[in-house]
Amino acid sequence: METVMERECSALGGLFQTVIGDMKGSYPVWDDFISKASKLQSQLRTTVVAVAAFLDAFQKVADLATNSRGGTRDIGSALTRMCMRHRSIEAKLRQFSMVFLDCLINPLQEQMEEWKRVANTLDKDHAKEYKKARQEIKKRSSDTLKLQKKAKKADVFGRGDLQPQLDSAMQDVSDKYLLLEETEKQAVRKALVEERSRFCCFVSMLRPVVEEEMSMLGEITHLQTLTDDLKTLTMDPHKLPASSEQVIVDLKGSECTWSYQTPPSSPSTTVSRKSSMCRLVAVAAAN
Amino acid sequence: METVMERECSALGGLFQTVIGDMKGSYPVWDDFISKASKLQSQLRTTVVAVAAFLDAFQKVADLATNSRGGTRDIGSALTRMCMRHRSIEAKLRQFSMVFLDCLINPLQEQMEEWKRVANTLDKDHAKEYKKARQEIKKRSSDTLKLQKKAKKADVFGRGDLQPQLDSAMQDVSDKYLLLEETEKQAVRKALVEERSRFCCFVSMLRPVVEEEMSMLGEITHLQTLTDDLKTLTMDPHKLPASSEQVIVDLKGSECTWSYQTPPSSPSTTVSRKSSMCRLVAVAAAN
Repeated sequence: METVMERECSALGGLFQTVIGDMKGSYPVWDDFISKASKLQSQLRTTVVAVAAFLDAFQKVADLATNSRGGTRDIGSALTRMCMRHRSIEAKLRQFSMVFLDCLINPLQEQMEEWKRVANTLDKDHAKEYKKARQEIKKRSSDTLKLQKKAKKADVFGRGDLQPQLDSAMQDVSDKYLLLEETEKQAVRKALVEERSRFCCFVSMLRPVVEEEMSMLGEITHLQTLTDDLKTLTMDPHKLPASSEQVIVDLKGSECTWSYQTPPSSPSTTVSRKSSMCRLVAVAAAN
Repeated sequence: METVMERECSALGGLFQTVIGDMKGSYPVWDDFISKASKLQSQLRTTVVAVAAFLDAFQKVADLATNSRGGTRDIGSALTRMCMRHRSIEAKLRQFSMVFLDCLINPLQEQMEEWKRVANTLDKDHAKEYKKARQEIKKRSSDTLKLQKKAKKADVFGRGDLQPQLDSAMQDVSDKYLLLEETEKQAVRKALVEERSRFCCFVSMLRPVVEEEMSMLGEITHLQTLTDDLKTLTMDPHKLPASSEQVIVDLKGSECTWSYQTPPSSPSTTVSRKSSMCRLVAVAAAN
């Protein structure tokens, strides 16, 4: 009977140690997670900068189309809408990388110190209590053993009144074992709860990050309409829209008008929009 | 009459030159776009690598939870699903960065050479034809002027049969102007179509990129269920699931069992899962 109880208490103690051991052995995994998350986060930060620069360049292309002489204004404004939607995505990405750092990486780093402290305390307290309980049981057991020998000897001469004392001692050892078993069960539960609460804590830090990630989704859904618009607008590149034909019609009998500039003998010069406008004004004034 | 027609032809020629000038002036904008897009693309490529490393680390955290002694297996499998979904997002991001390069950046770079060639040809051909037409008109105009003077002189002595010749010459100049006007209109249309087709070409290169971007969306939508699952599982960190209690119950009367190891005097050692398992087997064998 005692051996079975002893083995069960020892098994619970062993399970407790294994759970604590698992937790202590997990630090390199958490450290690696924090390190890889930090690298990804700094990568995201530089990506946001590259996205911003790219969108500036994209907007300039859209402006080219918008500010043309009439043939591509429609495409220009669709491209501008596409660019603006990506500005929102850029903002969400920036927000995402912030939350990644502020809600997950930094708090997790801090939390790990607490985890280490708690696991060590649990382990130390358990070892101390287990040792104390075992020593007490050992002492009571040896007392019982002595009493049993005494009773055996006494038995030869008649048991006398040792039996109730022996029963009580054996009951005491048994009670102590039951108490230890209960204590150990509680210790195992405590260790399991500590282990589980670590992952709960991790999930609670992860969730706002995933939520930020998902909120990028709202921006992306709008892209479908925009890309459909662009597809329709650019369906036939060789057909000019009515607005372009209008530019040619408007030219006729217009007060303020263009004039052909005889090109210099060198291969054609690049005329910027601004200088064209100046020339236009000059010609209009001259007329 | 002639002055009005001349001015209109000149206006059309000027518009043509402005459109061509706009196109020639746009190369720095396109170059900047390609440069910023390339930088973003290489940034995305390194981000994909960082995401992959992060997800490896994330999976190890999920494995920690899955391989625990019973208290967190449910959280572990939810985290694994979350990780797998992000593997798909990683794959989409990789695909996106490929398409960005292969469908937009590289083809646009090549296309620009063609654009430059076409714009130069349009400009040169137009200048040549315009010059030729103008010279011909000038010659006919001066012929007509001479004929007019001759007719004026002849008028003094009686017009004779010069009038039909003069009418025909004036009609000829007028016809030539009408022809030039039509030619110029066609040239302007050609230039506008070339300008528009550039943006149509750009959009056709942009669309597969946006489509890849949107297909990442499909992956993100699945995250909602996963994050909801995790929320439910981790609602109460201090309540052990039934499976954990079962571990304690199963221990009792189990054949293969744990045993408490008296800790060494040094502060508790880190026990890896592997060594725990070895110990478990050893204890089971010893019993």
